[in-house]
Order: sequence, then structure tokens, then C-alpha cells
Amino acid sequence: MSGTAAIIGGGVIGGGWAARFLLKGWDVRLFDPAPDAGRRIGEIIDNARHALPQLYDVPLPAPGSLIFCDSIEETVTRVDWVQESVPERLDVKHATYRAIQARAPAGTLIGSSTSGFKPSQLQEGALRPADIMVAHPFNPVYLLPLVELVPSARNAEADIQRAKEFLIDIGMVPLRVRKEIDAHIADRLMEAVWREALWLVRDDVATTEEIDEAIRLGFGLRWAQMGLFETYRVAGGEAGMKHFIAQFGPCLEWPWSRLTDVPELTDSLVEKITEQSDAHSGNASIRELERRRDDNLVGLLRALKDRDSGAGAHINAHQERLAAPLLDTKESDGLLRLMEVQVLPSWIDYNGHMTEFRYLQVFADTSDALLRLIGLDGDYVAGGHSYYTVESHIMHRDESRLAERLFTTTQILSADDKRLHVFHSLHGTADNRVVATAEHMMLHVDARSGKACAALPEIRERLDPLARAHAQRAWPDAAGRHVGQRRTG
Amino acid sequence: MSGTAAIIGGGVIGGGWAARFLLKGWDVRLFDPAPDAGRRIGEIIDNARHALPQLYDVPLPAPGSLIFCDSIEETVTRVDWVQESVPERLDVKHATYRAIQARAPAGTLIGSSTSGFKPSQLQEGALRPADIMVAHPFNPVYLLPLVELVPSARNAEADIQRAKEFLIDIGMVPLRVRKEIDAHIADRLMEAVWREALWLVRDDVATTEEIDEAIRLGFGLRWAQMGLFETYRVAGGEAGMKHFIAQFGPCLEWPWSRLTDVPELTDSLVEKITEQSDAHSGNASIRELERRRDDNLVGLLRALKDRDSGAGAHINAHQERLAAPLLDTKESDGLLRLMEVQVLPSWIDYNGHMTEFRYLQVFADTSDALLRLIGLDGDYVAGGHSYYTVESHIMHRDESRLAERLFTTTQILSADDKRLHVFHSLHGTADNRVVATAEHMMLHVDARSGKACAALPEIRERLDPLARAHAQRAWPDAAGRHVGQRRTG
Repeated sequence: MSGTAAIIGGGVIGGGWAARFLLKGWDVRLFDPAPDAGRRIGEIIDNARHALPQLYDVPLPAPGSLIFCDSIEETVTRVDWVQESVPERLDVKHATYRAIQARAPAGTLIGSSTSGFKPSQLQEGALRPADIMVAHPFNPVYLLPLVELVPSARNAEADIQRAKEFLIDIGMVPLRVRKEIDAHIADRLMEAVWREALWLVRDDVATTEEIDEAIRLGFGLRWAQMGLFETYRVAGGEAGMKHFIAQFGPCLEWPWSRLTDVPELTDSLVEKITEQSDAHSGNASIRELERRRDDNLVGLLRALKDRDSGAGAHINAHQERLAAPLLDTKESDGLLRLMEVQVLPSWIDYNGHMTEFRYLQVFADTSDALLRLIGLDGDYVAGGHSYYTVESHIMHRDESRLAERLFTTTQILSADDKRLHVFHSLHGTADNRVVATAEHMMLHVDARSGKACAALPEIRERLDPLARAHAQRAWPDAAGRHVGQRRTG
Repeated sequence: MSGTAAIIGGGVIGGGWAARFLLKGWDVRLFDPAPDAGRRIGEIIDNARHALPQLYDVPLPAPGSLIFCDSIEETVTRVDWVQESVPERLDVKHATYRAIQARAPAGTLIGSSTSGFKPSQLQEGALRPADIMVAHPFNPVYLLPLVELVPSARNAEADIQRAKEFLIDIGMVPLRVRKEIDAHIADRLMEAVWREALWLVRDDVATTEEIDEAIRLGFGLRWAQMGLFETYRVAGGEAGMKHFIAQFGPCLEWPWSRLTDVPELTDSLVEKITEQSDAHSGNASIRELERRRDDNLVGLLRALKDRDSGAGAHINAHQERLAAPLLDTKESDGLLRLMEVQVLPSWIDYNGHMTEFRYLQVFADTSDALLRLIGLDGDYVAGGHSYYTVESHIMHRDESRLAERLFTTTQILSADDKRLHVFHSLHGTADNRVVATAEHMMLHVDARSGKACAALPEIRERLDPLARAHAQRAWPDAAGRHVGQRRTG
């Protein structure tokens, strides 16, 4: 679709909207009276440009153009959508709508980023109240998909649909809120936690850091993928949602939070929750939901592990305790034994086997382990030298399946001042069979010029004795072959 | 370390403890009087065996042995740690401790999984109260690292340290709670949200599914990686935590939740929060925290996208709108043009270039696109036939850097009833230069026997005209080579 959006107010939220519209191919006209608005918005767009394209496996459309305007009136001429993100003061919002609607033609929809006000409050005294509704996003706006879309009774159904389509076009998920209510849905929930957290800090039960840890190492991970009710549905186990409420409902009467206004768990409320939960998740068994939850949690924890952040940092610390991943002194039949791996679910292809490129991942990791072994560390790379792989030949001999443990062996075929010619084999740990082999030619390079150059003496000192020892051995059958060559012998 | 753990109570929580101890190499003695306890625990251990090893890049220790015992007394002889997960009734817990301590030697530590009781309540009337403390985990216990460790004033410091070490040994992160309080920390926060969510359902503001969406498409993702206070610190922007509280603090007085017991934001409370937040996150600038948050969110969203779950399912739906990733009818210089990609941050290696195995990922995806083009779809694979790659040769000609857009071209070198010999080139979209090439031999197989067999006519009908057209072309220089072969001409 794409079009032109007017952004009124360029703070963290307005800037986030601008970035999202731009990167989804929309043109943006922006008004913010602050003198440093341009710099701030530039920084937000930088962040978005770094992050947003990573979510998709296809290219984003060419970005739209950004125009800074000098007045609200100039901003809102000929636009498809106006997003208002001015401060949370009703008088400021009302003045903003007056300025917008004085210039914009009738039917120009205005979404408000308000986290607290109801749409009917925003519409009070407006020239065209029916063009105004709440479209409340979550920071960072360019990454998080949720937008609470809250109309009042005055908004026409066709306009609500039109608003939805604009928001879907920029990759958001509009959650239409059924009833006007202060702070909509999500902020009410966050507010409840915020209040309780403030009590905990005030009473010295926990520090802000401890509260953050209590969230991000536990229930935060559950909520990121299933939310509250489905999580509890799974926790209820085979007996389901009703059992869960029966078991934990009484706690509502206990003084478990400082927040003491408690809904009565009448039969009709229990029934309503059970029916809604069945409608949402009832087509999956608890066992299926458990597996889905666990797969999601593994994915989230792996993502955090890759970034050494939150729960992932703790997993990395625990992994250090478990074992040294690099077994650099082990030998196997006189060859180097540099890597051990286990086939992960994400490594499996549609044939049910370990997928092609994961073999090269293991072989490339083996090459990296060899390079570390001969002294190629961070300092050496920072000094401007490295080995680059220029050519590879992979042969598949057998298949590997989910959860199989594998190890690699490495033979150095030849090495001179610039060239390092290696042969890796991937074996099943249980049966030692060869699953695949890889032959690589690596070149020592000056990274600045990108040209081959002689390896430094510190590398040769470690490499040469290994190469001499391996030179005694016969070449493997699978080395020196081209693709499609018939086997001999 | 490893040792022997006694698990008293084998429900969802006790079973999760058992699974975690076992998979971390501990022996487990378990008591649960329910007749189907064995089946339930077996299912939990199955789940754990599937999920837990995926968190680590090194093998887990050999699993310990599981022994079902007929009484509490039999369970707790000669164990290093007792974990109690019986129902949340104080009289039941007290009776359990009496039975445990009647047999276990003094100094045998007992951790209680209670989510509500304070340790001093648990200790009342016990034979050795100082051996009892709260060790409250989060479901699924085998995956989530958090455990709230809550001692009372009666527990010795050395015992608390010993408990911590046991818990760390099985990969958990003990959060020591400073003060006894009903429901500790995390459950107080969850309880606050649960109460507010029940109001929303009761008042028909939102369904359970809408509330789950409001959490998992928005703030749930933030909390999974940063928690509450650090998230707000970043939201406060350059002005920091104090600014955030100044801006949003007044909302505490507003009726934004039904939970109306509100702490007063005195100067000293604001000061305390600001100081604690500085101590936690003050060594990173807001810009750094924003980048860390965004990188984490990208990772979480990508993980959910891979699983087509939660926010990730919406990203997949949006991706469908953005573009068809398979450009199967395009041609480039008479060759098939099957893939377009952009180099992602996770594709970059320590040399700053696109890393080796990602090249094969793109080439393998290109082969898959070719196979889909000639009719190898899900039905064909389900029918027991497929093509497997048996041999590959990759040549690196140039480097590719972050965010570069690339496309592949494909030439069919030869095809017969079983063999499909192809040559792919990877090009820069901007300059058309060749970055790398790949030559693959694929074999048509009967997936059940794993043996080569003739492709079905429906494939040959589409493949043969393509192969005939490409047979007119010369072979590329890089085809038919072995690793290390000198270039000719």
C-alpha cells in the first residue's frame, strides 16, 4: 500500500512511529518544535535501520522520504494518516487536534499514542470527533508489533477498518479494544506491576535489579510467548483452566500483593474465563501446549544466550561449568579431534535429516578451532591478519538425525607460508561412522589489502609441527576430488 | 559436583525438579503417593530431555538414575538435598517435614517449592527448623533458571551458601530474597497482574485471548530480556530514571488499575529507585541500553518467527505481504534467478565478512527453490521421494558485508533419471560481481530405503526442458574443479 503519514510530536514514541513508517516505504512529514528534534529522530531512525530489517527474510521496500515541517498545519496537508504523540495532557492534545483539523480535509484519520486517555475524552470539542481514535503503540515502536486500537462509539466502522489497514501495512498488529477504559489494556496490567514493584522497593524487600531479575529469569520469558492465561492453562496441567483457577483462585483472598481491590471469583466469572480460554487454546492438548511453550522458551533462551544477555548470560556461565567446548588437545586415531556437537531441532530439514548448510557450519567451526589452536586469536585478527577459506568440497556419506552426537577429526593435508589445506571428517559419536567430509583451502591474508601474505612466525611455530606429523599419513580417498567424479577402488 | 536429590511430591513442579536434577547428572529419589505419578513424571522428563540439551553447546553430563520410593522416610536417606513440592497447605507441609527430619540426618537441607508461605511459617514446630528454607522455582522448572531462595533469620549463612551451590550446579540462578514476605517477589508481581486481568475479563473489556495478545506482542517481550525497571530506564531516554518517574509517577494517583492501594512517591523513594537503577545499569549509556534492548528483541522475535508462534507468527504474516521470497520465473542472462537475500548481522564473522556456512545456506536454499520449481513439493516428499545433495564444491571469489543485497543464478549442468548436477553463482545486486559459486550433485532417492531411484515423470516433465535449454551453454570455469586446482587460462 504505502502512503504519507504525518507525525505530530517527535519524542521516543513519535520518532519510533516515524522510523517504522519510513522503513516500510511510507513518506513521513514530521512536526516537533524542540530544537534538537532532528538529532533525536535521526538516532531513533539509526536504531530502527539497524534492527527492523533483521526481522524479515525478504528485503524491506525502499525507505520513504522524511520531511521536517515548521507547523502542524504544514505537516498534515495531503496525508493518509496522522499520528499524534504529544505530551499526555488533555489540553495539549485538544489544541493539537484543532490545529490538525483546521487544515486536514475531513476523513483524515488521527491516531493518538495516548497511553491513558479514552478516545471520547480526546474527541471532546473537536471539529470532527469521528476522525480521532486511540492507536497506542509500545516502545520501541519500530520493533514491537502491538498497537491498541481504541475507538469510541462515535467512530464509524469503515474508519476503524481503514485505520487497521494502515497499521497492518506497517507491520503492526492492531488489537481492537472492545470498551473504552482508562489506560486501555496493557498499561493497566503494567501499572499493577509497577505499583507492586514500588511497594517492594519502598519496603526494602528487593532492589530494582532484583525485581528485574525476578521478571526476566522467570515469568517474563513465559509471558513473551504465551501471555498470562495460556501460561496458566498449561500450568493447570491435564485438568485444564478450571482446575487452575480452583487451585489458585483462593490466593486472591490472601494478602499476596499490596493491591487489595480483588474481584470476586463468582461461578459465572470462572465459567467465562474457562470458555474464553477454551476458545483460544482448546484445539491443542496440554501436552501440545507444553511442547510449544518449551520450544518457544528454548528459542528465547538461545537468542538471549547468543547475545549474552539476561537469562542467556546465566546459561553461558553455566555452560562454562559444564565443559570446555574446545577439546583442543584430544586426539582421535592420530588426528586432531576439535569439535563435539549435538544435532539441534533447528538443524533438521524437510527430509527429517540434518540440513546441508549445518554440515558446513560444523566444519567451519572446526576450521576456526584449528586456527585458534595454531594461535589465531582476537589479537592476531585485530593486528590485520587472518585466514580466509577460498574453496571447499563437501561429501555426504550418511545422514544424521535429531539429537545425534557428532565429533570431527582434522587432518592437515599441506601447509606452506600462505596456504593451509585441511580435511575434516564428521563422525557419529556412538558408532564412529563417517557422516560427511570436508576439504578446505585456506589462505593467509592481510585483511586490509585483502591479498594473500605469509603467516607470521608465531603461527608457523605451532602449525609446522602439526603439518609435519600429518604429512606422514596417506591422503583420504575423498580428498582431491571434483564434484561428480566416479569413485575408484 | 552432582549428588543425590530427594524429591517429595511429583506434580508439575516436583516432576520438573526431578527432570532438571537428572539431566544435570544428579541421582534422584522420588516420592509421590498418586497412582499415576510414574506416568506423569515420565512425560515431564520426556519434555525436559527434548528441551534442556538445546540450551547448551556442550553435551550435558550423563543423566543420573531415578528411583521411585514408597515412603518419605525411604526417599530421604543419604541425600544431599531435599526438595519439597507438596500441596500449598501448611499442615501438609509441616507433616512432610516431620517425616523427612525423622529419618534424614541433621544438616540435610530442605528446599520448599512453596509460592506463598514464608520460611518462618514452614519452620514452625519442625525438629530442625534451621534446615528448612524456601527454594521457589518457576514452571517449567527444567528450563527457567530463576529460583527464589528465601531464608528466615534462623537459617545459618553457611547453609544458605550450600543451598545456593546445589542450585547453581543444576543450572539455576538463585535469587536470594532479603526479607521474608508472603509470595516472595515474582508471585506478588504476577498476582497483581492476575487480579487486574480478572477485572478486565469480568468487566468485558477484554477476553483472555486479547489479554494474552496485549502481553506477548508488547511488554512481555521487553520484560523477557530487561525486566521492569531497566525497560523504564531506557524509555526515560537521555534524561534517565528520575525523568521517567517524574513523567509517569503522577499516573499512580490516577484510576489506571482497579488495584487502588498505592505507594506514595516520596522524594526518598524516588531517590532510592534512582540510586538502585544507577547501580544496576549506570555503566551503560541510554544509547547502549537501547541497542542492547533492540538486539535482544530482534533475537526473541526471530526465535518466535522460526517457531511461527506469538509475535513471530505475525511477523511471518507480514513477510508474506512484503514480498514473495521465491522469484521462480525470473531469469538473469538466460539463467534461473531463484533467490534474493540481504546479509544479516548474525551472518557476519570475526573478520567482518559474511561467514562461510551462510554461503552454503543461501546456495542450499537456491537448490530448494530449484527443486520446488521442478515440482518437488510437500506432497512429493510425503510420498517418499526427494533429492539429497551428495557432494558440493564452493569457491569464494569476493567478500560480502553487512546489509549487502545478493541474488543467485542457477545453471543446470546435467540431469538424468537420478542425477541432478547444478551450478549456482552468488552476485552482488548493486554491481553484479560474483561473490561465490557452488557446484552440487544431487541424487533422487527413495527416502525409505535411502537408495537412489529414478525421478517420477512429473519431475522430469519440468526438469528436462530446463536442462535441455541450459545444455546449450558452456560450463562455467569454476565447475569440475577440485580443491587447490590451479586456474587455467
